[in-house]
Amino acid sequence: MKILITGITGFVSAHFLDYLNIVEPGSEVLGIARDMDEFDKSRYPDLKITIKLIDLLNKDAVGIILSDFEPEYVLHLASVSSVALSWKTPLESFVNNTNIFLNLVEEVRAYKINCRILSIGSSEEYGEVTEDQLPLTETHQLKPVSPYAVARVSQEMLSSIYAEGFNLQIIITRSFNHIGPGQIDKFVISSFAKQLVELARNPSRERKIVTGDLSITRDFLDVRDVAKAYYILLKQGKANTVYNICSGKGTVLKDVVTKMSHLLNINIETEVNPQLVRPNENRKIIGSYQKMKIDFGWEPAISLEQSLKDIIGYWEKK
Amino acid sequence: MKILITGITGFVSAHFLDYLNIVEPGSEVLGIARDMDEFDKSRYPDLKITIKLIDLLNKDAVGIILSDFEPEYVLHLASVSSVALSWKTPLESFVNNTNIFLNLVEEVRAYKINCRILSIGSSEEYGEVTEDQLPLTETHQLKPVSPYAVARVSQEMLSSIYAEGFNLQIIITRSFNHIGPGQIDKFVISSFAKQLVELARNPSRERKIVTGDLSITRDFLDVRDVAKAYYILLKQGKANTVYNICSGKGTVLKDVVTKMSHLLNINIETEVNPQLVRPNENRKIIGSYQKMKIDFGWEPAISLEQSLKDIIGYWEKK
Repeated sequence: MKILITGITGFVSAHFLDYLNIVEPGSEVLGIARDMDEFDKSRYPDLKITIKLIDLLNKDAVGIILSDFEPEYVLHLASVSSVALSWKTPLESFVNNTNIFLNLVEEVRAYKINCRILSIGSSEEYGEVTEDQLPLTETHQLKPVSPYAVARVSQEMLSSIYAEGFNLQIIITRSFNHIGPGQIDKFVISSFAKQLVELARNPSRERKIVTGDLSITRDFLDVRDVAKAYYILLKQGKANTVYNICSGKGTVLKDVVTKMSHLLNINIETEVNPQLVRPNENRKIIGSYQKMKIDFGWEPAISLEQSLKDIIGYWEKK
Repeated sequence: MKILITGITGFVSAHFLDYLNIVEPGSEVLGIARDMDEFDKSRYPDLKITIKLIDLLNKDAVGIILSDFEPEYVLHLASVSSVALSWKTPLESFVNNTNIFLNLVEEVRAYKINCRILSIGSSEEYGEVTEDQLPLTETHQLKPVSPYAVARVSQEMLSSIYAEGFNLQIIITRSFNHIGPGQIDKFVISSFAKQLVELARNPSRERKIVTGDLSITRDFLDVRDVAKAYYILLKQGKANTVYNICSGKGTVLKDVVTKMSHLLNINIETEVNPQLVRPNENRKIIGSYQKMKIDFGWEPAISLEQSLKDIIGYWEKK
């Protein structure tokens, strides 16, 4: 395939490219990124990858790249995806989600590029939910409660307008928590894994990690299942349609710590740092992936145990 | 009062200033505009008005003005409020609604300015509605169907986030169609009035006007009632709360043409230009102002007949 990927140096992109390297060797990939520090082309020997270092807020540059490359597919992964950061710098969070998306679709429209676009959203869009509403299906009402979530809802509404009003082939996701090898340690599971691997290596150190609230339940999906779902949606997703990308299972954070401690064969104590506990956080979030299953036969293939093993393996190597 | 008004040279602002000139003479007003062509200070002899010509997309300039002036109130009227235009230039429409609002609240937050902000929204936010859902109350679900409407919903979500998360005193409206003397002729009623006044003056010309779909029903509120409602909300509105500003009555466009023809004592034929008929337009929109009435005793005071007379009077003078 001939695909443009924004945020190509990120975690999800790496796994998407792994998958593409297997299922469609020879694919032409044009990646957009801010820098290439973390990118290793040799990981994908069968892909033809070019990278352009631009800021997606530079609309003209986006237009030049789109019109030169004429992609058949656009995978829009670039995002400032931290809820916590969005409370610190709300304007930057909004602009670097909504406005970069708007620049992209606007230039696709302006140059009349015939491509299919995958617009990535977030389970954060659902906002406040009660346990009786779980698992969340795509028809559930959106009540965003953070600047990041508002940006994602805005992006989704714009996707719909551009699909409906300008006939752009935009497919929309609401993606739940991803986990997997290669994720940076600002994300909770990756951060735990890194800390635990360090503790296992230093038997002298106190076996304690400091955490936020471990009693909350989240829906964790392995990034390799996410990558496969995105590939399917790029190929077959229905325009102007929203798909939940999730595991359908709830996992209590505490259990993740316990499982990883077992895998590392260490006993661990946890201490809650109240500063890491977010106010107004949902106790429990679980999504439904029935639409992905019914429409495309997609379902998660990688177990939580496998994901955790691989995440630990990643930090052990690092 | 000490008030910052964005879009001070506009139609609504003129009537708000008329009202302020009566109820709070001596008020200090700092206005933001793009140019001063249409502004006549002498219309408000008892107000102290200063104007700064800046682009609200210039966040630093917004911050300088806010921190210099330290308003007690902010009336944010600046907007690119045309639905039709938003389909032609969706990005500009989005940015000149959502991003200018974001700059404003972000600078109020950054400089810790203790002020009450009125965020103007639109009945367009409701989007697709069916007749059994009328009159629309503030709890009705939002389904925006134009780029302009998406921008307004985004602004409303951001208002809520800034009010809830950063304790800003932001009050929110969803304002229905305004009419009244001074409105430019790109708006339907003003455009009809102008055409009819011209026909009445030239008896030789064919008594025909070309229109869009005249069978649709809209909720028209006189701009002077709007101005009063905004004043009340600035003073007493509850933060993070949405208020419909509307007449509560449905008027068929055709009847407006008939009423104005009677007032001008002419017979008129109308011809529908299919190009002026918008696709997917709601047949009927009526709002409920019960919340404004119950909370503040506000209700529309100016009849449709009076509005139409004054609009005709305006064009006769012009």
